[in-house]
Amino acid sequence: MNSDDKLQQLIGRVRPPDPSFQEAARRRLNSLTKPRGSLGALEDLAVQIAGIRSEVIPRLKNKVIITMAADHGVAVRGVSLYPQEVTCQMALNFAAGGAAINVLSRMVGARVVIVDMGVKGGLPSYEGILCKMIDFGTDDMSAGPAMSREQALNSLLAGAEVLENELAAGLDIVGTGDMGIGNTTSASAITAAVTGAPVRDVTGRGTGIGDEQLERKIEIIEQALAVNRPDPGDTLGVLEKVGGFEIGGLAGAMIAGAANRIPVVIDGFISGAAALIAAGICPQIKNHLIAAHLSAERGHAACLKHLGLRPLLELDLRLGEGTGAALGMFLAECSVNVMRDMSTFEGAGVSDIPGGGAS
Amino acid sequence: MNSDDKLQQLIGRVRPPDPSFQEAARRRLNSLTKPRGSLGALEDLAVQIAGIRSEVIPRLKNKVIITMAADHGVAVRGVSLYPQEVTCQMALNFAAGGAAINVLSRMVGARVVIVDMGVKGGLPSYEGILCKMIDFGTDDMSAGPAMSREQALNSLLAGAEVLENELAAGLDIVGTGDMGIGNTTSASAITAAVTGAPVRDVTGRGTGIGDEQLERKIEIIEQALAVNRPDPGDTLGVLEKVGGFEIGGLAGAMIAGAANRIPVVIDGFISGAAALIAAGICPQIKNHLIAAHLSAERGHAACLKHLGLRPLLELDLRLGEGTGAALGMFLAECSVNVMRDMSTFEGAGVSDIPGGGAS
Repeated sequence: MNSDDKLQQLIGRVRPPDPSFQEAARRRLNSLTKPRGSLGALEDLAVQIAGIRSEVIPRLKNKVIITMAADHGVAVRGVSLYPQEVTCQMALNFAAGGAAINVLSRMVGARVVIVDMGVKGGLPSYEGILCKMIDFGTDDMSAGPAMSREQALNSLLAGAEVLENELAAGLDIVGTGDMGIGNTTSASAITAAVTGAPVRDVTGRGTGIGDEQLERKIEIIEQALAVNRPDPGDTLGVLEKVGGFEIGGLAGAMIAGAANRIPVVIDGFISGAAALIAAGICPQIKNHLIAAHLSAERGHAACLKHLGLRPLLELDLRLGEGTGAALGMFLAECSVNVMRDMSTFEGAGVSDIPGGGAS
Repeated sequence: MNSDDKLQQLIGRVRPPDPSFQEAARRRLNSLTKPRGSLGALEDLAVQIAGIRSEVIPRLKNKVIITMAADHGVAVRGVSLYPQEVTCQMALNFAAGGAAINVLSRMVGARVVIVDMGVKGGLPSYEGILCKMIDFGTDDMSAGPAMSREQALNSLLAGAEVLENELAAGLDIVGTGDMGIGNTTSASAITAAVTGAPVRDVTGRGTGIGDEQLERKIEIIEQALAVNRPDPGDTLGVLEKVGGFEIGGLAGAMIAGAANRIPVVIDGFISGAAALIAAGICPQIKNHLIAAHLSAERGHAACLKHLGLRPLLELDLRLGEGTGAALGMFLAECSVNVMRDMSTFEGAGVSDIPGGGAS
């Protein structure tokens, strides 16, 4: 089977969440010893997950954060505060367990899968990093397409493969994360291309650049869009022209998550841009996405609005790596554990209102 | 020592957070392998806790949720959807481990301390419920003061005693929670009295009452304020006139938390009203408070604004019990564990920006 057919087959397996399980989950929540709806967004989350998993009370025991790293050719134009070798150094830091995503994954009991989607120079062979390298970083998108169409397609399929390989080890919910110096530049270009928002409105300070560097970053993105003219109706083409390998990989993992009825907790701006790519290719996956948080990075709000997602958290995070997704995954587990472990009005002998919640 | 002196002694022990530990915590955060400030509100939280605990990297191992239950005389006027016996039934449900607060406390590894501050009829002797009963529920505040000034003072001291008794068992961070049919009516009256906001603007649907019952609730609160004329400059008097025993107990626990350098994670609207009482008596405690979330209950936003606190979460929770506080406590633990367990730029061999984060 060729790559195009593989992607079409994956997309064909995506089914909408099952409304009968959603209704049963809502009935269960209404029977529990609390005023109806009083756990707010946690109740909606439990219902969403029940529909995705086709289980009234899903168990989210096996939690995985997939963190994908890759380099960006546009980094040579000075869009970040940090040198490009930090992508590689941080991937090694993930493997050694010393990054923020490692700490937060331990807090929520998730395992972290680190993937080299295309780090410049290649990562030294290191236990705990999965190699799915498409190329040694993308080309400079301000001078031409970031990658070939074949590479864009292959990055999607590689990401899908990463997710499907985790199923055997146990996978009930997945979170997405990223590392790549220069990748907010790519994410802003994708967001502008897909949503139609002006570049300035969706471009932020990334690692913390100053005013002058921000102006240059905006110009470079405008240049990339002028040179490449991505078509918002063809998000695989958007990925090819202004994307990144880790962004393609995450988009593929999202589609594969949906195809396998796994709720996908998306992290911040880079994951949001990947979701724009994925939802353009397969609009149905929006039902399977959970927006963990609203990033402090300008542009993320436009992503979430376009996807129709409401973020669970708003903590001004702007780190990526999957840090926000880890926290969102914890809330997801809280929501289903409430459904499983709380007493019902009847079971606890607590008076319900007439016509009661359990009805 | 009489009760007044006891309270004054407690207040005298409250010290502001130590800025030298806050600065050291900020330096530590800046040395870690992430762009400076990129963990947003979590970084501010870690700094706040370091200052309160007088430790650069505090350990929040011993986590406690104090959930206080009491009845409200005003409940006879039909301000809630649920009958008054639900206060007692839910306290027993807490003790049996079947309520939302039990599930969420298990998720975050906190122990729950359930306190009877004045449940109507009295709670049957039941393992796991601490009896600090002031009276069998308050009087109807729409007809006169809810309690005597002595009872108000005693509820504060009882709450302080509950907190201080937990120190021996280990207490690094505390969360507050409540149960009491009718207590949003009391919390709205307190909020209107202390902040000066119109009753209508700070009165919500509580357990989920309809439009007509909401109008009646507003009238009853206006009546209570007209009959009692609480003085916003004397929040012990506000507690006496329109408060509740669990609200007084929580206010006392907050002051005792601050006096013992324990960060206090406040839950939703009832805890917010308790914080208004506590901060009126001892303004310094504001530095020790962490607002877990913004409740869906109308009035909570006005509480937090008056206290100058920014909520960590906004999940439309409106359950109370300490459910939001449990989630906020988890974020607090995440924030300090990031400080402890992440690698530094130097340690991990990751290139920092010139002039680096560690400076």
